[in-house]
Amino acid sequence: MANEQLSNSTIFPLGQKVEANFIGDAYLQMIYTDATPLNAPIGNVTFAPGARNNWHFHKIGQVLLVTGGEGWYQEEGKPAQFLQSGDVVNIPANVKHWHGATKDSWFVHLAISPGETEWLEPVDGELYNQL
Amino acid sequence: MANEQLSNSTIFPLGQKVEANFIGDAYLQMIYTDATPLNAPIGNVTFAPGARNNWHFHKIGQVLLVTGGEGWYQEEGKPAQFLQSGDVVNIPANVKHWHGATKDSWFVHLAISPGETEWLEPVDGELYNQL
Repeated sequence: MANEQLSNSTIFPLGQKVEANFIGDAYLQMIYTDATPLNAPIGNVTFAPGARNNWHFHKIGQVLLVTGGEGWYQEEGKPAQFLQSGDVVNIPANVKHWHGATKDSWFVHLAISPGETEWLEPVDGELYNQL
Repeated sequence: MANEQLSNSTIFPLGQKVEANFIGDAYLQMIYTDATPLNAPIGNVTFAPGARNNWHFHKIGQVLLVTGGEGWYQEEGKPAQFLQSGDVVNIPANVKHWHGATKDSWFVHLAISPGETEWLEPVDGELYNQL
């Protein structure tokens, strides 16, 4: 699917291509960055098929609201969880994990992210390809 | 549009009909209610055409993320703002306002709501019908 088509099929803007800490093509548009009333900025993250972020953890945690496509969320030492439109993920503080698209689908989620993120190594390609 | 069709066309669940503080048919499904890491629960609110909530204010504020349809947001003493998919509204603390669908469209938004809400009188039907 061309980027323009994807942008038209989603709710919030596609934004700019993410250059660091991701494998494959991913895009980020911040949609809420005000200091009040929420304790966290909100970004719209779009993953092309096969794209995923590196292993990382959030010092306070993060909430994902899946708005389109199909993807994966995996915490270290646990099976990957399949995600689709309408799913909500509460990612606890300091839990190492990654998220991204399935091999065959675009994947779009809002990420509500209080606090900082610590980026780690890329997800092993063999592990990803077995999903 | 039948409820079932609407539910199928939206991202998050329709939930239950809201019984108080709204005119017309509106539905609420809470999608995030955990204590951490966010400072606010998140609800998915769906308004049938012509439905709107009463005037009200939030003691800390509220953020709306519009995920479908067409609606209005109006602060007291200001013109109503037209809203559509992809719009984000930061509602300041203690500002009297209402939101809801246009006369002809369903309207769906996420509402992220730290703190309490104080409910006031219904929106005047003549005011609404002139929009």
